[in-house]
This record gives sequence, C-alpha cells and structure tokens, in this order.
Amino acid sequence: MVMKKVSLLLYLGIFLLQASISFSAEIPISEASSECIDCHASVHPGIVQDWQNSRHANIALKDAMTVEGLARKVSSEKVPESLKGAAVGCAECHMLRPKAHADTFEHNGYEIHVVVSPRDCATCHLQEAEQYSKNLMANAYDNLAENTLYQKLQRSIIGTKKRSHGRMTAGPADEATKAETCYYCHGTRLNVVGKETRDTEAAGELEFPVIEGWPNQGVGRINLDGSLGSCSACHTRHAFSIEMARKPYTCKECHVGPDVPAFKVYAASKHGNIFSAMHKSWDFNAVPWTIGKDFTAPTCAACHVSLLVNGDEEVVSERTHQMNNRLPWRIFGLVYAHPHPQSPDTTVIRNKDGQPLPTGLDGTFATKYLIDSKEQDARRKSMQAACLNCHATSWVKGHWQRFENTIQKTNGDILITTGIMEDIWQAGFADLKTNPFDEAIEKKWTDTWQFYANGVRFASAMGGGGDYGVYADGRYQLTQALLEMNDWLNLHQKLSISGKK
Amino acid sequence: MVMKKVSLLLYLGIFLLQASISFSAEIPISEASSECIDCHASVHPGIVQDWQNSRHANIALKDAMTVEGLARKVSSEKVPESLKGAAVGCAECHMLRPKAHADTFEHNGYEIHVVVSPRDCATCHLQEAEQYSKNLMANAYDNLAENTLYQKLQRSIIGTKKRSHGRMTAGPADEATKAETCYYCHGTRLNVVGKETRDTEAAGELEFPVIEGWPNQGVGRINLDGSLGSCSACHTRHAFSIEMARKPYTCKECHVGPDVPAFKVYAASKHGNIFSAMHKSWDFNAVPWTIGKDFTAPTCAACHVSLLVNGDEEVVSERTHQMNNRLPWRIFGLVYAHPHPQSPDTTVIRNKDGQPLPTGLDGTFATKYLIDSKEQDARRKSMQAACLNCHATSWVKGHWQRFENTIQKTNGDILITTGIMEDIWQAGFADLKTNPFDEAIEKKWTDTWQFYANGVRFASAMGGGGDYGVYADGRYQLTQALLEMNDWLNLHQKLSISGKK
Amino acid sequence: MVMKKVSLLLYLGIFLLQASISFSAEIPISEASSECIDCHASVHPGIVQDWQNSRHANIALKDAMTVEGLARKVSSEKVPESLKGAAVGCAECHMLRPKAHADTFEHNGYEIHVVVSPRDCATCHLQEAEQYSKNLMANAYDNLAENTLYQKLQRSIIGTKKRSHGRMTAGPADEATKAETCYYCHGTRLNVVGKETRDTEAAGELEFPVIEGWPNQGVGRINLDGSLGSCSACHTRHAFSIEMARKPYTCKECHVGPDVPAFKVYAASKHGNIFSAMHKSWDFNAVPWTIGKDFTAPTCAACHVSLLVNGDEEVVSERTHQMNNRLPWRIFGLVYAHPHPQSPDTTVIRNKDGQPLPTGLDGTFATKYLIDSKEQDARRKSMQAACLNCHATSWVKGHWQRFENTIQKTNGDILITTGIMEDIWQAGFADLKTNPFDEAIEKKWTDTWQFYANGVRFASAMGGGGDYGVYADGRYQLTQALLEMNDWLNLHQKLSISGKK
Repeated sequence: MVMKKVSLLLYLGIFLLQASISFSAEIPISEASSECIDCHASVHPGIVQDWQNSRHANIALKDAMTVEGLARKVSSEKVPESLKGAAVGCAECHMLRPKAHADTFEHNGYEIHVVVSPRDCATCHLQEAEQYSKNLMANAYDNLAENTLYQKLQRSIIGTKKRSHGRMTAGPADEATKAETCYYCHGTRLNVVGKETRDTEAAGELEFPVIEGWPNQGVGRINLDGSLGSCSACHTRHAFSIEMARKPYTCKECHVGPDVPAFKVYAASKHGNIFSAMHKSWDFNAVPWTIGKDFTAPTCAACHVSLLVNGDEEVVSERTHQMNNRLPWRIFGLVYAHPHPQSPDTTVIRNKDGQPLPTGLDGTFATKYLIDSKEQDARRKSMQAACLNCHATSWVKGHWQRFENTIQKTNGDILITTGIMEDIWQAGFADLKTNPFDEAIEKKWTDTWQFYANGVRFASAMGGGGDYGVYADGRYQLTQALLEMNDWLNLHQKLSISGKK
Repeated sequence: MVMKKVSLLLYLGIFLLQASISFSAEIPISEASSECIDCHASVHPGIVQDWQNSRHANIALKDAMTVEGLARKVSSEKVPESLKGAAVGCAECHMLRPKAHADTFEHNGYEIHVVVSPRDCATCHLQEAEQYSKNLMANAYDNLAENTLYQKLQRSIIGTKKRSHGRMTAGPADEATKAETCYYCHGTRLNVVGKETRDTEAAGELEFPVIEGWPNQGVGRINLDGSLGSCSACHTRHAFSIEMARKPYTCKECHVGPDVPAFKVYAASKHGNIFSAMHKSWDFNAVPWTIGKDFTAPTCAACHVSLLVNGDEEVVSERTHQMNNRLPWRIFGLVYAHPHPQSPDTTVIRNKDGQPLPTGLDGTFATKYLIDSKEQDARRKSMQAACLNCHATSWVKGHWQRFENTIQKTNGDILITTGIMEDIWQAGFADLKTNPFDEAIEKKWTDTWQFYANGVRFASAMGGGGDYGVYADGRYQLTQALLEMNDWLNLHQKLSISGKK
Repeated sequence: MVMKKVSLLLYLGIFLLQASISFSAEIPISEASSECIDCHASVHPGIVQDWQNSRHANIALKDAMTVEGLARKVSSEKVPESLKGAAVGCAECHMLRPKAHADTFEHNGYEIHVVVSPRDCATCHLQEAEQYSKNLMANAYDNLAENTLYQKLQRSIIGTKKRSHGRMTAGPADEATKAETCYYCHGTRLNVVGKETRDTEAAGELEFPVIEGWPNQGVGRINLDGSLGSCSACHTRHAFSIEMARKPYTCKECHVGPDVPAFKVYAASKHGNIFSAMHKSWDFNAVPWTIGKDFTAPTCAACHVSLLVNGDEEVVSERTHQMNNRLPWRIFGLVYAHPHPQSPDTTVIRNKDGQPLPTGLDGTFATKYLIDSKEQDARRKSMQAACLNCHATSWVKGHWQRFENTIQKTNGDILITTGIMEDIWQAGFADLKTNPFDEAIEKKWTDTWQFYANGVRFASAMGGGGDYGVYADGRYQLTQALLEMNDWLNLHQKLSISGKK
C-alpha cells in the first residue's frame, strides 16, 4: 500500500520532468526565425524571452491543429503548408503576405514588415479576426476621426489653444498629441513616409521604413495592409497570451478613466474582490474556460469574450471577439445610453436632426441605425447565460431590472442637464454653432454625461451598484454639476437683466 | 545518510498525497445537501465549486468542534445534534429555522429559504453574531432610513429630479435606485411580495418566492427572519473564507469612494505597500493569526477584527465583529469627527439643537450619546496593542498624537466652512429649512466635510499621513472649496447690494 | 532509463531539503544582536520576523563580501573587521557610530540609537549612499523648507486657517500637521528634545530619548547624525529587501496623488499591465537584474534605479541611487517642465526675476542652474538603453518625440493659464504680493500646472499616452480649468465695470 503510493509519486515526478524537458527541446523553429533569434535574442532579449515562454514557441503549428473541439486554438481550417512544420516564430508573422504590407523592407536577405496586422493573425485565427471585424473597436479610428461632431469635441480638448482679447480658441491638434491621446486607444492611421538608414550595433548600416503614427497598438489602428485593429492591444506582444487578455489589467489600459471607469468599478465590486483575493489559484490558460473549476468569479473577458463551459462541459457562452453581441445597451461615450448600433461603422448614423449621433439631444433613439428590442433581448439572454451559472434566476432578474432602470433614470437626468444647456444656448450665453463643447459651461454639461451618467451606469452594470455610483463620479457629482449649471444660468440671466437696465 | 533524506522526501510526498486524497473523500455530506448538489452542481457550478473548496465542505461539524482554544472556529458551545455528523452543506444553512424565514418555500420536497441570515449563521458562530449585533453596521439600514436629516441628504443625491421655471427639485428616489446606491452597502429591507412560477431546465415548473430588495448583501440588510446584516458581505458566498475577509479587497467594496477612502489610503501607505509586495507568502487562513509568522503588515482585518497573537501565542487582540471597540473616534460620514456613539442604533442621538446628529453644527459633541474619554482611552489602548508588536512606544505615541491633532484641526476647518454656510443661509442666498443639502453651494459645503476632512483623517489614521491627506481629496481641496465658498458668499453679497440699488 | 530519472528527482528533492535546512542554521549572530532578539522577538515579533527572512539575517557579512562582480551587494570595499563575522543584526546597525547620533542612549548596557541613517548604511553600502546624496530627494527637506515661495504654497494648503470679516487668512502650520503632510514624503527634521522614562513590560523602568519629528521615513529626513534621507523609505524595515524596492507599490507611497500620478499612470500602461498580470513568476531578488529572464516589463526601479543586464550579461543600465541621471527633464512639481537642476540642492536656483524657481513665470529656463542639452542627451540615451532591449529604434524614437512634444505643448498651455492669472493680478482681482497661491482663483491656476499638465506629462512619459492624459486629470481638465479661469476674469471685469457705473 505504501509502496503503491511511493511509485505514484515517483511516476508523477517522472512525468513532470519529462514534460518539462521534452517540451521546448523538440519544437522545430524555422530557419528564418532561427536567424532572427540569432541577433534579436541579445538585441531584444525582453520580447524574445516573452515569445519563448509563449504557446507560439512551444508547439508546432501542425500539432496545434490536431487539437479538436472546444480546446482548439487555431480556428482556421486551412493554413499554408509551409507554416505547419514549425513553431510560430518571428518570421512566421513578420514575413507573412509581404506584398500586402506597405512597410515591407529587405532585412538581411528577408522581406520583413514591422507591423503585424489582424489579417496576418487571421492566417491561423480566422474566426477571431472575422469576429473582431464586426467589433465597434475595429472601426474606432474612423468612428472618431470621421464624425464631424466628435471632431469638435476632440478639438476642444486636445486642439492647440490660443488666447487673444480675452477669448479662447483652439486650432487643430498636432499629430504627436493626437497619437498619444484619443488615438492611443482608438488606434492611429499608419503611413510609410520614407526610409532611413541606421547604424546598428549588431549588423552595421541597415535601412528601415519610417512609419507615421508609429508606435501604436490601438484597437482600431489602420494598418499598412489596410486592415483594422491590433490583436496586441489585448494579446500583448510577444507572448500573445490568453492569460493576459483574460486578466482585467489588459482592459484597464483603456477602460479606467472617468469617461469609462470599467476597471475602477470592477475592482470595487464583489466580482473584482473575488478576483483580487483568489485568482492566484485560477487557471487563466484553460480553453475552454470552465466556470467553477478554472475560475470562480468573472473577469472582463469572462462576460464579454471568452468561451465558457460549465462542469458538464456544456457551452455556456460562445467565444466572441465581436464582444457587443452580449450587450443590449451601449452605456458610455455619448450623451445618452442607447441600444447598440447595428453596424460597427457608426459614421453612417444620423439622428432625427441629421446629426451624427445615435440619439437626438432630447434622448430619442436613432432607431433606424440601432439594434431592435428583439436583438436586445437575444443579447441580454446571451449575457445572462453566464450570470446564471453562479446566481439564481431571481438574483439575475433583480440585477437587470435595476440596471435597466438606471439606464432610464440617468437618461432622464441628462435630459435635464441638456435642457439647461439648451436654455443657455438659446439665451446666447454660450455658442452652440461653432462648437457645442468648447466653453467652460459646455464642459460642465459634458461632465454630466461623459463622466457621471457613465460612471453610474458602469457601477450598476458591473457592480450591481455601490459607492462608485454615488460618491465617486456618481449621482452626487451628477446632481452637483446639474445644480451648478442651473445656478450659472440663473446668475447670467440676472446679470444680463441688470446689464440691460 | 542520503537514504535517510530520500525516505524523508518520500514520506513527505506520501503524506501530501494522502492528505489531498483523503480530505474530501471521507467527509460525509447530508442526504439533503447531496440532493441539492445533484442538480445545482451543474446548474450553479460556480458557487458549488466555491463551497467545495471551503472549510464548510471539508470537515464534519463534529470534528470542527473538537478544536479547542484559540484555533476554534465554531464559537457556539452547543449545536443541534442533527447537524454534527456532516459537513456544512447547502441544506445545513438554507433549511435552518424554516418557520422563522418569510421566504421559506417548498422545493423538491424540502423547505428552503433563499436568504441565509446572521441568525442562521449563529447556529455555529454565536459569538461572532452577537458581536456583530453591536456593530454600527448591523444597524446601517435604520441608521440611514430612519434619520430625517440623512434622508434629506439622500434625497438630494438620488431623488428623482425635476426642473421647472429655473428651479430644481427632487422627489423621493425609486426603489431600484435606492437598492443600488446607499442601500447597496447599508443593506436593503427584504420583503416577500408574492410567488412566481418559473419553468426550470433542470426540474420543469417550480414555484419561487418573489423578494423585494433582492439581491442584496449589505451590512445592515433587514432579513426575512427579522435579523440584521449579511455575513456574506465580507465572508463572500459560497466559500465564506477567512482569507477573503482578511484581504483588504473585501473592505474596498464599500470603503473606497471619496466619502470613505480607506482602501485608497491603505494601498498607498507603508502597510499597504508591504501587503501588496509580500502577501503572496502570508497565511491568510491561520487561526489565530500570528503577527510576524502569518503576516508582516496589517490588513484592515488585523487592526479592526481578527484574533491576533504574538510569537509566544499570547493574545494581542481579541477577535471582534463589533469592530468599533478598537476605535476611539468616528472619523467619517458626518459633519465633524466625534467619539463613537454608545449604541449601534444612532437614530436615538440628538444634538443640543434637537437634530439627529452626534454633534452640533458648531462641532460640540452630543456627549450623552457618545462614549466618554475613559472608554476612548480603553479603545485607543486596544488598538495600540497591535501597533506595538512592530513599532516602539515612541513611534506609536507620535503617530497617535498626530492623528488626534488632525481630528482637532479638521474639525476646526469644518467649523469655518460651516460658518460660511450659516452666513449664506442667514443672508437668504440658500434655503436651510427645506433641505440643507440640495443646492449647489450646499453641495460644496458637503464636499468639505464628507470628502476632504474625511480623506485627511483617513490618511492620518491609516497612513500616518502622506500625499492622500494633501493633494488627493485632502487639505488642498479642502482649502480650495473653503476659499470658493467664501468667494461665492462675497460675490452674492456684492450682487445683492448692487441689485438693491 | 526510468531509474535514472527517478534518482534525478530524488537528488533534486535532497538538494532542496538540504538547502532549506542548512541556510539559516549556520549563520552566526553577534552576541549583542542575540541579546536584542531575546527580548524583541516577543516584544516586536513583526519586525524581528521580517529581519529573519531578510538577506541581512541569512548571510555573514564576510560571506556576502566574497561575492564578486555584478552580483555583489556590499559595495563598500572595506568594512570594520568587527562586523565581518556575523549576520547584520539589530546591533550591527543600531549601535554603529554611537557618538555621531544625538539619540544614542544606554539600553541594557548597550549604546543604542533609534534612528538608523544612510551614513550608517554606508558602512556596507557606500556606493549607494554616495549616489543617493546626489539625488534631489536627499535634499527634499531643505528644498521645500528653505524656499520662500514654496513656503507660501505650503502655508496656503496646510496653514492654520482663520476667517474674519469675510476674509480668509492662513497662519503657520503646526508641527504635527507638517509632519504628516508635506514632510511625510519630504522627510522631517529630527531633534532630540529630552528624555523620558517608561515602564516597560519586559524590563521595568527604562529611559528613552524623545525625538521631535518622529516617526518619519521621508526621503530627505534630516537625521540625528546630520545625514540626509532614509533608506527605509524604499527598502522597508526590517527586511530592507530589494524585492520591495523593485515593486512599484513602494514608489506609490509618495507618487500616486494628482500632483505626481506616476503609479496611477503606470498601473494603466502596457508595462503596468504586464507587471500586474505576470509578475508572480518574475525574480525580484536577482542581482544583476536580467531583462527577459528575471522580468519581462519594467517597474519603476528598472527604468530609474536598478542594475540591468541583457541575456549576454552585458550591462544595459548601471545601478544608480541618484536616479535623475537617467532623466533629461523634470516634469512635475513646478509651474513649467524644465531640464533637471544641476545640483540636488535647489534652494540656490534663481530665475531671471530673482525668484527661487527653475523657470520664469513666462516659462524661460533658469539655464545657469539647469543641466545643458548635452547632459540632457546623455541622460536620454542612458534611459533609452533600457527601452531598446524590448523595442526597436523606431518605436523608441517615436515614443520620445511624442513625449518631448508634450513637454512643449503643456508648457505652452501653462503659459496661457499663467497669462490669465497675470491679467487677474494686474487688474487687482487677486493679490500676487502677499501670496500667489492663497486665493480660490489662484488655486485653480495651481490646478492647471500642479495637477493637469503634470498628469499629461506622466501619461506621456510612462504610458506613451492613453486615457490618463486625456480624461483623468489630463488635457480635458486642463482645458476646462483654463476656460473657467478665463470666464472668471471676464465676469470680474464685467462686474467691476458695472460696479463703477
């Protein structure tokens, strides 16, 4: 009996030793990638090491393709034969489709491009790339840059300021500022604008492309092959790990500020508490991701992206890189919350007054461009499918009733602040026409919807409420700003009347 | 010699294997709980798995009761015989005292109640439940809902807003909003308002109670057996772990906003730094909790709740779920800091002007309702007992002198801002009577005590000072708001005089 | 074959067992330190245990000195023979140079001083102490306390406030408040002001020095031997670990508020994301610190302090406790960003108008006192050396171009807000002479540079941009405050004119 257990232990040890020994030793690396690594392992040790620890480096593509069913990570059914025999190394990505990439350049006998795009990744991960192309985020560049109204908001914040004769104006923002502000997250438009020769330590003089808009890893980056987005926004180079994308820190990069306080709300929620306290023992790499076994509280990815199964290996949520197909409402970024847009290209949207907005300034939905209530129902159900794995129906129902009540109430509050703003515009105390966002009182109005109503909705959606919906850029601040706007109007009316006397 | 060590290793391995194998295998689960798990393991895998990893699932009650001394977790001396033989499973909690719970319903032949209450938990954890009943938090519902003045503050923040003829008013808040704002933390009042039949996947049509105020896990929840509070506010379902309650993320759920920035201050303190950097090697499950051995810097629980011992196993701090018995001062939530209330029911308190406040608007303490300086001394000492395990007497003394100086100074600053506010009320520029909290200038006054003086005190108490008491909702912002209030008054005096001309 | 692996496993096990057994058993502890521990292990178990886990406790000094090359931690070439034979225990630090310390007192037959200073640490860590003496932070006390202008800012924030006849004034701050605000981070000036006798539990009546300004661990503390700083600010007592100093939580203690939001920006950056998600598998104790192997994304220490090597063990960055020798620009704390001061003593600096500021109010640099562009180039290169281990030249270049553009642009924005402020002073709507920081409108001006321009620069420098440079105390708030200042001036001009009618 004792002996049996001893040998069990020994076999376990042997297995672990074999596993760790054989794993990296036998994975063939292509000749091209080997040559890359010869120099770059010492020139760029950080990223080479990241890659060496990644799945890309530790399994040959053909072996990865033998995985069947839910555990399969290579979603493409066919991949080029030439890639199958080796690990996915430097060359396998940076040498793909050389003619498609404007930044392809000759580098030590190889045709290399700097910026790997979703269309490159689609070689193996076709399904994810196709899903992502339907994601609002893929269009984040144009959705901001091609919306005349948003461009006014943008200019009012990052434009080059001037003051003359007591008046403030803002000219266009410079490119460097644009690239590190809005377009850091939205993604820049990349352009090859020339070549330069650099004297490198490892290999003497070499020529490289000069890329405008680089560096960038924004979600809607316009790549040099014309494709949209950057997988490395979430699957950080050069590990491209599922683990990182599933942890909430990744989403935090763009979703933490007062305009979109998702991480902040999550971290103070019960789910976030469980994550923070317990995740050291969770398995963030398991595919599919089993509720209860691999993790015991959702991260951002669990609700919005990942393929979830229950203990019986039944699919609870399909993997989606479209993300919004589990979202009935779009709760942030705009004056009012509204049903999600139908198309990821939101530049086509016009409200009843012809403005490029999904609602009127009175809150009416531009229904023609938004999903209908049937689609909302379907999305609500697909989100709730995950909730129901830990919560009873009555809990889930109660949570959603409150959330949808909060959408109505916050829209109602913004109807009031917008009403005050319209009175201010009408009275001529502020100028609507040139730019509705560039005066102090207009910024206070912007605060009410872009920060406070947003924050309240996030707290409701992700935390079921809590302090963040009250005192931390919540209802307290919303009320305060509303009262201050009202006082401002009253004061100016008074001054204006007394001025006229 | 070598052989000896080999066998040592082998025995270690065998021991570990046996431990992990035998542990869950031999714990009997009651027939009722087994039947619950049969369905719910696949219907609600998340919570079932949480429970399976918990102590509740991994020891029979009778075995837990054999633990003697400081390590004992079952504080009740007598528990029902019927529970002793098995682990504490679903049925052991959700079927306790069925007649006491208004939400008890027939479910597959069993009488189940949805909401488990502290009085249920008291079956095994009597001492903790009794202590908690003396905690201010147990009364958090009534303390807010039954205080006419706080109700005005509440309405000014979450009430349904209306604007007409340039004036803002607020009606009562709707129930859904209340439940996800103030009462998310304070706890809702639960009520069974009917029954509903749902078609379940696992078992066809079933009838369930409909509970108003659900879901909720607030600290002062009014339960369906009339008891107060929710143990799962901190001991998160369904692991109910000591580990989670001892980590600061749990307290953060309600103590992170600008009105009560405890977590924020802690995370930027030396203690928080040590926790963040080193806690991966601490033992958060040890009972008692040994200073130095199990942890090397305090978390919230260490100072406020846990049973602490030193290396000689001498008790440093008794376990307390009353919590405020280590607190001489109540530093947040109200206009002035003041000695702790004597009774956890604060609705009985009246200041010298008959208002339901622990101080006058001039800062004088409503001493009749507050602990006296002798009790303050005792509480100070019981808190300092923990400090002294890592800090010399001079350090601890210096820290507390600064903290109590800060209480005086911040109360002094608030006396000034309240003085300005009173001048404003007296001049008729704002209306005290209807609601002292519902105008813009009143909100600015509220900022000074509810955010800034609070924040300063937290930074002092928990961090020994630092940036959070200066620039992050600290003295800087307090001064700024004070100056703005003063300017506001001066401007309105000027306008009022010029208007009269 | 199988047998071979079994024995491999067994030997591995034996090795681990031996390693852990032999480690602490054989380290000699000095007689004096042993005597300290006899009492303090039970009186102060927290700090004794911290020390016992530290390197100081686990290697005799002479053995630590046998380490050669980059791994060496004892940078002094010569240390007193008397210390060499034992671990670095209580006595080895608290009994060093007794005559130099004003707080030396007789304690159970030993001459002990309470406050260990960098000059004590220099006994073994000479190089680090010398580097640190060139760090701005070493002079943080005088740089604040001896700058007449900063003293006005200080008084406007923490001074004792008074209101009379509608006017606010601020007297000097009290010592307790000073010690827990500005000087918590900057460091206090310590003074022995007497002795006191305390009845101790362990040893009856004992006499101790009374130290003004204690406790404190600020970076520029003026110690009782006249030395400057506190190593334990970062190398927290009593583990003094490299691990803690390398984790960003340590820097967060002083660098997280809106005036210096370094941690906040880092935590939302790609680097911070990688740290948060992956650091559990990093080695924070390795010296030197190998990029890629020991860590895969920089923490604060990696860029600003640590000795970094690449995979070929070539030095990438020399260790520096001066810190600013990798920094071309000083981006926070003052009205404009500017080249770093030449001397760590900034009290000598005068701008063209004779003010103790590194720039004029019009932004012109006080070049005589600041590093020149050649030195800036050298520092830029020494910082970039680290970047280049994970990023291609074009990435690094693009990043720095944006950052230096942002320095220019934010300085330009502050030139406008300062211009408005000067118009306000000139018009007599605020008083420049008494104190340029103590009126409400002056605080709003202070917001623009001390919070918003700062925040924008941190987001650029450490995150390459992102939301924190836009919506979280960023360009949005900078613009808003600027517009509000302009409106304020316009309103006061209007009122002033109408008042004159």
